[in-house]
Amino acid sequence: MYEEFEKIFTFILELEKLKGINRKTKPLGLDRYENSAEHTWQVALLALSFKSYAQQEFDIDRVIKMLLLHDIVEIDTGDKIVYSAAYDDFDNEYQAAQRIFGLLPNELGQEFLALWLEYEKKETYEAKFAGAMDRLMPMLQNIHNEGQSWVENNIKLEQVLDKNKIVAHANPALWEFIQQKLLQMKDEGFLL
Amino acid sequence: MYEEFEKIFTFILELEKLKGINRKTKPLGLDRYENSAEHTWQVALLALSFKSYAQQEFDIDRVIKMLLLHDIVEIDTGDKIVYSAAYDDFDNEYQAAQRIFGLLPNELGQEFLALWLEYEKKETYEAKFAGAMDRLMPMLQNIHNEGQSWVENNIKLEQVLDKNKIVAHANPALWEFIQQKLLQMKDEGFLL
Repeated sequence: MYEEFEKIFTFILELEKLKGINRKTKPLGLDRYENSAEHTWQVALLALSFKSYAQQEFDIDRVIKMLLLHDIVEIDTGDKIVYSAAYDDFDNEYQAAQRIFGLLPNELGQEFLALWLEYEKKETYEAKFAGAMDRLMPMLQNIHNEGQSWVENNIKLEQVLDKNKIVAHANPALWEFIQQKLLQMKDEGFLL
Repeated sequence: MYEEFEKIFTFILELEKLKGINRKTKPLGLDRYENSAEHTWQVALLALSFKSYAQQEFDIDRVIKMLLLHDIVEIDTGDKIVYSAAYDDFDNEYQAAQRIFGLLPNELGQEFLALWLEYEKKETYEAKFAGAMDRLMPMLQNIHNEGQSWVENNIKLEQVLDKNKIVAHANPALWEFIQQKLLQMKDEGFLL
């Protein structure tokens, strides 16, 4: 059993590296970019907070697990802003997922890899809900932080509307509400 | 419904502050202290990785939820090392929990507060398993980082053995394995 424990320790300590992967968003009130580890925690709680507003019966616990795992591949590939042409990088990310989840005892590694793949494919409602929360989080940060990462990266309203419409899968009224806020951000000059 | 959404947004953006609460441990390979937000993410994955080794049937999903919520009170109270006399600070923490979870729509806030209280009381197996994972994580970091936070805070082997024995509730062999490593750390001079 000690051998299995050591494999889990190796995996968990490999995760330390995600604390050093920076995103494009700054936490409100802090003068630094956020990292993907702390982002992941916050998105998991965003999903847990919106569970009652889902459009169908679903398994919130699988959503949480998917979210806890979804950014781990960035240890190898780095973070890419959703508006970048380099965002769709499935082959490299899959390779990273196989390497990192491969550090675990086999059955557990396969379980995590399957959850990661489910999230990536966005076919199940759980994956769509998780994806919606992942996209909602930086919009909320930008809306309350003068469009910080939009301004720094010259992002246009149309791009934000196009890339984040998955939020409607979680809840159409939520997406409607966010769209109103996005239009206001453009009026105020925080979106091109 | 927009009013409920705004309450959730307020709660989620309040969580930004946990990214600025530093712990005593440095992530491996990074020259800074870790914050409680990124720590929470890692502990949740530690629990998910050890779920098959629990000593009885239990609800891993409730464990994950408790862990995601357990450190939020530090937004108001700050992080205290487990070896400090100030560690047991239930009254202030409970006040913080009521304030922060009170930002949410009422039913959801009550649900989160109940999970936080369950974690604090350590009466259910889920709370004990979650607590074991929270204690295991910084030991693993220290064991692989020359006892960084133990050395900086003059921690003794007996303190570590005493304060972390809850790990045995998760799995006795795991605690046995960790104890072997702790003795080795003392031999190498990384624990007093």
